[in-house]
Amino acid sequence: MRFFASDNSSGIHPRFLAAIADANEGHYPSYGQDPFTERFDAAIRRAFGAGAEAFLVFNGTAANVLGLATAVKSHEGVICADSSHLNVDECGAPERWLGAKLFVTPAKDGKLDLAGIRRHMTRLGDQHHSQPRALSVTQPTELGTVYSLSELRELAAFCRENRLFFHIDGARLANAAAFLECSLADTTSGAGCDVLSLGGTKNGMLGAEAVVFFRPELARDFKFHRKQGLQLASKHRFLAAQFSTYLESGLWLEIARHTHGLALHLAELLRGLTEVEIIAPIQSNAVFAKVPKRLIRPLREKFFFYVWDEFEWVVRWMVTWDHTRDDIEAFAEAIRESLASGKEEP
Amino acid sequence: MRFFASDNSSGIHPRFLAAIADANEGHYPSYGQDPFTERFDAAIRRAFGAGAEAFLVFNGTAANVLGLATAVKSHEGVICADSSHLNVDECGAPERWLGAKLFVTPAKDGKLDLAGIRRHMTRLGDQHHSQPRALSVTQPTELGTVYSLSELRELAAFCRENRLFFHIDGARLANAAAFLECSLADTTSGAGCDVLSLGGTKNGMLGAEAVVFFRPELARDFKFHRKQGLQLASKHRFLAAQFSTYLESGLWLEIARHTHGLALHLAELLRGLTEVEIIAPIQSNAVFAKVPKRLIRPLREKFFFYVWDEFEWVVRWMVTWDHTRDDIEAFAEAIRESLASGKEEP
Amino acid sequence: MRFFASDNSSGIHPRFLAAIADANEGHYPSYGQDPFTERFDAAIRRAFGAGAEAFLVFNGTAANVLGLATAVKSHEGVICADSSHLNVDECGAPERWLGAKLFVTPAKDGKLDLAGIRRHMTRLGDQHHSQPRALSVTQPTELGTVYSLSELRELAAFCRENRLFFHIDGARLANAAAFLECSLADTTSGAGCDVLSLGGTKNGMLGAEAVVFFRPELARDFKFHRKQGLQLASKHRFLAAQFSTYLESGLWLEIARHTHGLALHLAELLRGLTEVEIIAPIQSNAVFAKVPKRLIRPLREKFFFYVWDEFEWVVRWMVTWDHTRDDIEAFAEAIRESLASGKEEP
Amino acid sequence: MRFFASDNSSGIHPRFLAAIADANEGHYPSYGQDPFTERFDAAIRRAFGAGAEAFLVFNGTAANVLGLATAVKSHEGVICADSSHLNVDECGAPERWLGAKLFVTPAKDGKLDLAGIRRHMTRLGDQHHSQPRALSVTQPTELGTVYSLSELRELAAFCRENRLFFHIDGARLANAAAFLECSLADTTSGAGCDVLSLGGTKNGMLGAEAVVFFRPELARDFKFHRKQGLQLASKHRFLAAQFSTYLESGLWLEIARHTHGLALHLAELLRGLTEVEIIAPIQSNAVFAKVPKRLIRPLREKFFFYVWDEFEWVVRWMVTWDHTRDDIEAFAEAIRESLASGKEEP
Repeated sequence: MRFFASDNSSGIHPRFLAAIADANEGHYPSYGQDPFTERFDAAIRRAFGAGAEAFLVFNGTAANVLGLATAVKSHEGVICADSSHLNVDECGAPERWLGAKLFVTPAKDGKLDLAGIRRHMTRLGDQHHSQPRALSVTQPTELGTVYSLSELRELAAFCRENRLFFHIDGARLANAAAFLECSLADTTSGAGCDVLSLGGTKNGMLGAEAVVFFRPELARDFKFHRKQGLQLASKHRFLAAQFSTYLESGLWLEIARHTHGLALHLAELLRGLTEVEIIAPIQSNAVFAKVPKRLIRPLREKFFFYVWDEFEWVVRWMVTWDHTRDDIEAFAEAIRESLASGKEEP
Repeated sequence: MRFFASDNSSGIHPRFLAAIADANEGHYPSYGQDPFTERFDAAIRRAFGAGAEAFLVFNGTAANVLGLATAVKSHEGVICADSSHLNVDECGAPERWLGAKLFVTPAKDGKLDLAGIRRHMTRLGDQHHSQPRALSVTQPTELGTVYSLSELRELAAFCRENRLFFHIDGARLANAAAFLECSLADTTSGAGCDVLSLGGTKNGMLGAEAVVFFRPELARDFKFHRKQGLQLASKHRFLAAQFSTYLESGLWLEIARHTHGLALHLAELLRGLTEVEIIAPIQSNAVFAKVPKRLIRPLREKFFFYVWDEFEWVVRWMVTWDHTRDDIEAFAEAIRESLASGKEEP
Repeated sequence: MRFFASDNSSGIHPRFLAAIADANEGHYPSYGQDPFTERFDAAIRRAFGAGAEAFLVFNGTAANVLGLATAVKSHEGVICADSSHLNVDECGAPERWLGAKLFVTPAKDGKLDLAGIRRHMTRLGDQHHSQPRALSVTQPTELGTVYSLSELRELAAFCRENRLFFHIDGARLANAAAFLECSLADTTSGAGCDVLSLGGTKNGMLGAEAVVFFRPELARDFKFHRKQGLQLASKHRFLAAQFSTYLESGLWLEIARHTHGLALHLAELLRGLTEVEIIAPIQSNAVFAKVPKRLIRPLREKFFFYVWDEFEWVVRWMVTWDHTRDDIEAFAEAIRESLASGKEEP
Repeated sequence: MRFFASDNSSGIHPRFLAAIADANEGHYPSYGQDPFTERFDAAIRRAFGAGAEAFLVFNGTAANVLGLATAVKSHEGVICADSSHLNVDECGAPERWLGAKLFVTPAKDGKLDLAGIRRHMTRLGDQHHSQPRALSVTQPTELGTVYSLSELRELAAFCRENRLFFHIDGARLANAAAFLECSLADTTSGAGCDVLSLGGTKNGMLGAEAVVFFRPELARDFKFHRKQGLQLASKHRFLAAQFSTYLESGLWLEIARHTHGLALHLAELLRGLTEVEIIAPIQSNAVFAKVPKRLIRPLREKFFFYVWDEFEWVVRWMVTWDHTRDDIEAFAEAIRESLASGKEEP
């Protein structure tokens, strides 16, 4: 059975598995004092600039929460979208770990705008009120949309003027760069980002994400935060080796183009189905569609996926690195069939 | 260069790498709703009894800290050895995550005894004082020694009488069971343990540890603690597959016997070197020795290892799964040579 | 100069000061083991029922945060109004102390309704998402409005059905009971409340609030939470003595009627001023009014008060226990004068 | 019945009660924006130097824990005595609030020395290990002994060399200054202290302690820590007024001399009782004595006090501001009688 449920429905990309196997020779120091990590550090600097400093962690929640931990004190807070992973998919880890407030902001298509952000810029200096200290956006957003470079720069300028750190949750950052036809740096360090969660796992790695700092003062104590945050890998070389492969060989772009292309192809195949309404522009590897309820049950018997909004019957279809054109076509065909066969339940 | 620095100086055991590759086919649900995890759950029940319930996490610090999180409230505390990983090697993660006090207790050869534990059983019910609520021992200890089954049962009985949960940090548990010639259950669930950190990484896995609960009330909310504790793996099947291989095939015992045998062999080879004093019984894969300072520098140029105590010049030599008899013999030879050639520094 | 800024602009009510002086004889045990605290406990049981168990703390933020601490675990959350003290006036103390999420909900006139609450009752049991575990309402609300007994009962019934604890922030609870012409118990324990923050300071006490539990399991460990939460008073008898005076003598009702009466009187005096729009029903000791911006500066030179909403020019005028009918009339007169003399700024 | 149990067995010193009553006129801003707080600030600067910046809180646990909160990050730790209030009498509040480790150190007569402190200065920069960041001493200690000025300066010099902040828990600081015949500044800011918990409650105030910073960077964000730490008093003027009285009038010295004199007198009266062994020098208002167990029960029927060490039958007798020479003499007489009449229990 094929899934359209999650980037993580698929396993490890063969080139990452090969990178792991290649690193599996000989003895090295644990915890990042090894040549694989040196090579990773160099790959990060090439990709993001000489000032970038990166730390590997195990998953995206850790990258987000710990990435914010050196920037935000407990009496401060993080402005983020209501639909952000930080707010709704991390089981309160930001509140627990940071002790800080999330300033939750409505976000159309998953994207924050200045009007929404400004609502939280009140009571500055007032000891009774959590002080906004960081802005976090997801690029691409949880709805698969992508901030343009000018949108990012506008947010970054706002952050500079208002003493906010600018965090990007880039769990699928490669897809944003691919869509914008720019480098990974252009959409992060180049656009004014201070700290980045750089995703690996959703792109086919095994348990590897990076926190990338573009300000040395945020990186300084991070090694302690990572260890105390339960995220220091003893066999660090295997996380590093995967990321080096990802960054050095252009694999990030290859995977991103592949999944974006297939998402567009799926949308194209669904064009004309009046009952399937695609609700957000397809700018990465996700297709969000409003569908008749009767579609869901028969379709899920063939291809597993998640319902995003049970009130509006919006579904999320995620394309992953190992999907093929055939998968997409079979899925589109199954949608047509399920529409035809499904019965509306009461 | 060969290392005697850490269980993690070596990489991934080939059978774990094979298990990862074998699991890397097809699409499955993320986060543990997959058949590999079902198989892991069954393997745990076979190894530890029908009441055992296990959760996979990324590393040993997480297993220890989160494993205690459902047992210990912030106004309570954990009695542990001064030399315990919990106390000295987790960068304060227990205090940070539990908000609780560690009742640090002197421990000869790394082992706690009732006299030391009882010192903390005071001021019970007194609102001004943290209340002891758990006992944590490491099996084998950080000094490579092993609690006997009767020692464990005595500690467990004390815990029952005093409303303490009994936690075992079993980062190298297999070595204890091998030494005691008992099952993994005998030295944990069978001896009165309530919650176990079951190590995988130090035994050759890639980023996998298990928290095993022997009381359902401790397991009940654990999934939330794991997620909020930044430890929920999306590609959960690869952690599960490694552990199933470990438990089902007797691989745990094979590795443990191998490393213990080599540690004994090393000690045997060093016998007669009057300047090398082995300071703790060799009951697992570690050799702790008091050595002349002049030995250290030349020996570390050939084989990397750590100094355990810089005041007493105690060194720790760890045997790992991929050491061979040849490695041991070359190392013993290098010790002899370094003793001969090293010069005492001022 | 007279203030209409806060319930705390005034000092200590003379009868509370007398209670402190009366308790200031002789030696007693610290930390609540004294006869003044026994008398307080009895007064609580008379006021709220035999099952009520109360603990004294220093301020309202502590009462709210610690009162929720035995009910809500860090992976859970509290549904509360966007305008609630818990959300906007406690500098993130709930997030910091509970480690939990606030499910912030829009609230007309400061009051929550079931439609808003239900929006958060999703993803129950989903490990990725904070689990709603308590509902917190303020009675009277931060906008001075009062939930009716049937509204409270409806909320309580919803809580029962959905395994939520029902918390009431009663920093000014006496005013609610006075308005509803019911007892303190009717609007709390009698209406299904599980835990109450019972205000003292805003009613004229010096540094005294009570957390009142109506479920023994929530009270059981609270003494440890209070101590660890920095809120255990050594000279506990002086907090207890004030509260006993408050509850035993009907002083709570006397003060509440006085301040409500004066608030109504102020509104009456302002009737007919078309530029002063009272925006919320006057059900306690607060008057919220939308005013012309030009009023504010000259009026604040005579009587200090706060602007509630700088965008809409809503001001908050609070009546306190030591205001007199003359104060109110002088204030109303000053409003008229300031309206006449103030100049609209650009 | 008279108590020798605690400084807090007695109530409020009449001059503090008068200060409260005097401040109870008129309307003022809440939360410290009032002239009473201005006067307090000036009194602090006069007592401790122009660079001193103080914040009022409700109790000593809060002063200690929050006072350390701007100095110590969660991956760092505080070196303190095993007998310190911080370690044994705050129910784990330091661990809970700071998330940091206490480096607990044996302390003869309650006093730390460099040898003990140095034991914790290891593994600096090692990400696996909590980093020592502050030294906390109690002056006078929990055993009533007093560090000399040269001892303090030696500790302060060590702190400077090792990047440790130097915290003094001065819950009874006045007694130390009285004993040393120096000013409050001499034994704190003058001796190299960075942050001080300045006690008020144990000296006869009602719920008032001060955190005094001697480094502006530690004070900068403290107002937020205080509020989030549940310690911001709305009726702040009453805390401030008590402290101004204390500092301006020499009352601190008067009380300290009185209680020290009575403690010495008690010891003098007990001289010659071979069964009552005073175990620590009497340098403040405490008398610690090793006594026969048979003394305790009959004596406690007449005068309440605490047993300090149930294994060694050490008792603690505390003198408070309202004890008289007659109290002391009656107590000494009761000790003689109880020794005569008490029967040794099995």
